[in-house]
Amino acid sequence: MTTETSTTAELLTLRVALGERSYPIHIGPGLIDDGEHLTAGLTGKQVMVVTNDTIAGHYLERLTAALPKDLDVRTLVLPDGEVHKTFANVERIWDALLEAGFNRRSSLIALGGGVIGDMVGFAAACYQRGINFIQVPTTLLSQVDSSVGGKTGVNHPLGKNMIGAFWQPRAVLIDTDVLATLPPRELSSGLAEVIKYGLIHDVHFLDWLEQEMEGLRRLDADLLARAIERSCAIKAEIVAADETEQGVRALLNLGHTFGHAIEAHMGYGNWLHGEAVGTGMVMAADLSQRLGWISVDDVERTRRVIAAAGLPVEAPAEMGVEDFLTRMKLDKKNVDSHLRLVLLRSLGDACVYDETPLDMLRACIAEFPRRH
Amino acid sequence: MTTETSTTAELLTLRVALGERSYPIHIGPGLIDDGEHLTAGLTGKQVMVVTNDTIAGHYLERLTAALPKDLDVRTLVLPDGEVHKTFANVERIWDALLEAGFNRRSSLIALGGGVIGDMVGFAAACYQRGINFIQVPTTLLSQVDSSVGGKTGVNHPLGKNMIGAFWQPRAVLIDTDVLATLPPRELSSGLAEVIKYGLIHDVHFLDWLEQEMEGLRRLDADLLARAIERSCAIKAEIVAADETEQGVRALLNLGHTFGHAIEAHMGYGNWLHGEAVGTGMVMAADLSQRLGWISVDDVERTRRVIAAAGLPVEAPAEMGVEDFLTRMKLDKKNVDSHLRLVLLRSLGDACVYDETPLDMLRACIAEFPRRH
Repeated sequence: MTTETSTTAELLTLRVALGERSYPIHIGPGLIDDGEHLTAGLTGKQVMVVTNDTIAGHYLERLTAALPKDLDVRTLVLPDGEVHKTFANVERIWDALLEAGFNRRSSLIALGGGVIGDMVGFAAACYQRGINFIQVPTTLLSQVDSSVGGKTGVNHPLGKNMIGAFWQPRAVLIDTDVLATLPPRELSSGLAEVIKYGLIHDVHFLDWLEQEMEGLRRLDADLLARAIERSCAIKAEIVAADETEQGVRALLNLGHTFGHAIEAHMGYGNWLHGEAVGTGMVMAADLSQRLGWISVDDVERTRRVIAAAGLPVEAPAEMGVEDFLTRMKLDKKNVDSHLRLVLLRSLGDACVYDETPLDMLRACIAEFPRRH
Repeated sequence: MTTETSTTAELLTLRVALGERSYPIHIGPGLIDDGEHLTAGLTGKQVMVVTNDTIAGHYLERLTAALPKDLDVRTLVLPDGEVHKTFANVERIWDALLEAGFNRRSSLIALGGGVIGDMVGFAAACYQRGINFIQVPTTLLSQVDSSVGGKTGVNHPLGKNMIGAFWQPRAVLIDTDVLATLPPRELSSGLAEVIKYGLIHDVHFLDWLEQEMEGLRRLDADLLARAIERSCAIKAEIVAADETEQGVRALLNLGHTFGHAIEAHMGYGNWLHGEAVGTGMVMAADLSQRLGWISVDDVERTRRVIAAAGLPVEAPAEMGVEDFLTRMKLDKKNVDSHLRLVLLRSLGDACVYDETPLDMLRACIAEFPRRH
């Protein structure tokens, strides 16, 4: 077993097993106000909470009020949105840390979605060659995906997440209360990654998601907590087995090569990450079917559960085959310009495959439904 | 033993023992033209050689000519000098890699001194969350210090090396031929770090340096090779024991807290790194004597060997006590704003000490000779 689970009162704790870099994932209500869990991973006395201008109004004051009074607490508010996941904003974090005289034992707290988490993690990775940080994800997407596993970074005009580092947080605090105010589109985007875990690793979880999708979209707290728990447990297991994506961790990218192409082509933030991945997973399923691995019914089932989550299942009308191929070539998962894709051997069992005939890929993209 | 040594013909090889991240240090003549050793650490087929505009004219064509013809080799020439060790130049490397479509298996070769090595290492650490790189250091300073051990990074207006990562090279190729054309001031700067190894770890090496300093400054090839070998062996041993500077690695910073203050105050590049460290080591020796650890004669011996290397042993006239203290507070080695200094228990035995009385430090700085 690579993860341990414990439950106290309403709080559930998983563990990402990475030797010296192991850390807990706490899941439950009220964690933003929980000073004890917020500070458990801190070393020094200097803490900077970084968030965005949407989240700041809701949670920044509450979180800082929960921190012990003997800490030197600073805050930094960055603009909200994927277009702001840039080097310039990471530099703003470094400038603020240096202006405040923060040292190597200082800590960062990332309060926000995946954009904040990725930038704060990257800032932590490179500030004085690495300081502690804690993830407090405030969207479903970041709770089940980007806050766990230590992938950090920023976008470059020539590609998404092209600059970054593997840098593990000291703790992940998933406050399930924050989902009550999450806009429906953001919720759906998060559900894309939840569905992904079922597709790549656990067909029973996929069954459960199909049954409970309505309740999940109604923001049923118990159902969401269970979906987050199972998603994080699968991610923790995969990350523990392959921290730096030399092998099995690549399976977490199901739908992402197609998805990144859509995000980049449409302009980051116009299609949400989960929306692009949702469509990308249907494309990956379609291609898996063309390879003879899964049935037409399996593809339809994949399409249906993704649509039921409120996600697009058609590619953008403005993207032709060459648009996809050009964007996909720059994808980090391609080794020596050889096209590698995560595909489905069956529902609940993904693999990395680099022998997809280019003609088949072209046909898949060309014939895939478009959103008009 | 943390290092192994082997010798073939004129080539000598040490090893930095870091488990999966272990790598060889080759020392000898002709390595810049040695395609076999240059490519031994490469994985993919894409290689970018990054150098500066001084080194480019001497060695860039020779090095690229030595690389196998089946590689996709690109070159990038950055401006020379410590003032150019900036984020903007690291971004230029990333831009060039992305424009060339370089993937996760591509490699960087750092051809130059410490500025190039630190920037290329940092660029490698963060490009697509980490790619291979090889160090081909062309100054004595970078050969005996910065090319070994994986410290990478850039300067920030508010501090030296404030942004960076620990990222080990795949190999270090120290071509001893390049020293024949090294300007005397650069040679002296490198000798400061060589002397440091004697002071912190090996008094017999210090004895030897005192005896052979004249020959070293005359660029005697055999003496230089022996000085480089012993310096790299000590550094490899310390890095293997403490890769990320949680403990013993800090000893490598003897003289650096004072030195960084001088470099930063005088403007990076006006005092060479080794010059500032040379003076800084005399200041550290002086302070160690004030603490009663070493004798006045030991301080004088330290001062003499550093002066014999052609290095300054007086602080800049324009720096007052407060200038030093202000700059030293931001130093990365200070934990929770507590002043930590590397000092000498005896010649050949350094320690980290954080209980220096502030009054004693002030007196040491105030009474230290100034360069007029």
